[in-house]
Amino acid sequence: MTGRAHDSAAEAGKVWLVGAGPGDPGLLTVKGLRALERADVVVADRLGARAVLEGLAADGVDLTAEIVDVGKRPGHHAAPQDAINALLVQLARDGKQVVRLKGGDPYVFGRGGEELAFCRDAGVEVELVSGVTSALSVPAIAGIPLTHRHLATTFTVVTGHDQITELGGGRDHTVVLLMGVGTLAHSALTLARGARGADCPVAIIEDGYGPNQRVTIGTLASIAHQAAVRKVRSPAVVVVGDVVGLSPYAPADIAAAAHPVDIVDPLASPSPLPTQRTPSELPAVEQTSRKATT
Amino acid sequence: MTGRAHDSAAEAGKVWLVGAGPGDPGLLTVKGLRALERADVVVADRLGARAVLEGLAADGVDLTAEIVDVGKRPGHHAAPQDAINALLVQLARDGKQVVRLKGGDPYVFGRGGEELAFCRDAGVEVELVSGVTSALSVPAIAGIPLTHRHLATTFTVVTGHDQITELGGGRDHTVVLLMGVGTLAHSALTLARGARGADCPVAIIEDGYGPNQRVTIGTLASIAHQAAVRKVRSPAVVVVGDVVGLSPYAPADIAAAAHPVDIVDPLASPSPLPTQRTPSELPAVEQTSRKATT
Repeated sequence: MTGRAHDSAAEAGKVWLVGAGPGDPGLLTVKGLRALERADVVVADRLGARAVLEGLAADGVDLTAEIVDVGKRPGHHAAPQDAINALLVQLARDGKQVVRLKGGDPYVFGRGGEELAFCRDAGVEVELVSGVTSALSVPAIAGIPLTHRHLATTFTVVTGHDQITELGGGRDHTVVLLMGVGTLAHSALTLARGARGADCPVAIIEDGYGPNQRVTIGTLASIAHQAAVRKVRSPAVVVVGDVVGLSPYAPADIAAAAHPVDIVDPLASPSPLPTQRTPSELPAVEQTSRKATT
Repeated sequence: MTGRAHDSAAEAGKVWLVGAGPGDPGLLTVKGLRALERADVVVADRLGARAVLEGLAADGVDLTAEIVDVGKRPGHHAAPQDAINALLVQLARDGKQVVRLKGGDPYVFGRGGEELAFCRDAGVEVELVSGVTSALSVPAIAGIPLTHRHLATTFTVVTGHDQITELGGGRDHTVVLLMGVGTLAHSALTLARGARGADCPVAIIEDGYGPNQRVTIGTLASIAHQAAVRKVRSPAVVVVGDVVGLSPYAPADIAAAAHPVDIVDPLASPSPLPTQRTPSELPAVEQTSRKATT
């Protein structure tokens, strides 16, 4: 006999750890979307993941899965990691196809390694689907590449402040601070004391890809004051290095530090064109409804 | 009158700089796929991008775009960057919808910043679509997260060797070397002299997501010899740090260095479970047809 409820429940469940990307449903991977479409349950973080689910719904993608929100909400605590781990395993043991949807990439400050190890140790099939990390895509939407010829050949991604004291390199070594708003003043002071110097460019991108996206650009010397005046809040990504000068939001003095001399338009002219940046030349990556500042 | 050929040619063209991800078509973004589907021309790199186009074709996705291959092929040089820049602008001026498809992410050692600036300076509309960088997704397929609680809270991505000498941090600061096979012996020696030490774990993942995917794991002291014996070749991603011990390919002595003490299964037992790794416990991210080694 087929079709009994118990047959279905006895089927092996599986957990997909899916990177949702930075919050734009278009930056979800094809494999991640397919996993969401066939899921019975989606266990979602608030940051990034919820925005993607809402974006998919707005785009007319009809997910049949039950959504379990384990992220922080205003006035509520996030579910503890142990409880999330236990939930994933229990759902899979109940025969569910489970998507654990995490903002960005599960392996970049996403605790994906812990969840994968926990599922595997519990005998539950688990598969990782990498995602577009906020560490690179949030700077990108402000027109800032993490590497750029003649400007940066290395980048480091950190969260806390402790790691910054050991960080070498100069302005050609881009630093991305995730979850760094609370310790920004301290971090900027520490980085300014090193080879980068006090006038090294810094960008803060708040709520990247979200409705309150806002870019603030200054230097290691000025950024903490600017952030206080503008009441910069999490979630935000901070980028430090000369690549910040490539952003169309950069004021002229900071943009001047980032002038690749080798950009030549052979179609237009045999002589090098200076990189010109005016407020009207905002890049296509910018969304015009968003607030910008210099 | 509508429908004249000149109307179509006079329409504004546009360039999308699309990150193809590491080579698995499932790790292309939804927005990237949509751009490919409506493109007139795809200007593709060999590494990563061609694999995605071939994978899409194998999956039955029928792209109508003309494909222009500007990547390196055996016995051929890659098209020079100036020629690629000029081609993108010319195609857009001809009214084409152009996708510039680049392996990984365009802003991580992809020269996307140069191509975007060139198009913008030429007055061509250009939009960036971030991708899944190989820097995190290739280690992921070998079961290695770049960050992991108690093991790594920082990661740095570098290409050349020069930047390594200035790099601080210990084994909890993961280092990813892209295009680092040629300078591996030198880089390993330099890193071993620092706080990481000669017995710091190292993984090399060759041809990630490709038909010749292979993982080699050793230490900073041993890896150059192992790479020579196994004839390790580009493309390959090198990962340095204690997180390497989380890989199911890691031999027991290296895995022992990566034993998070806080992974507890409340469903199974009230006492901490040691992380057990045997060759039979390969993760779901591994593809069973691929060669593995310790």
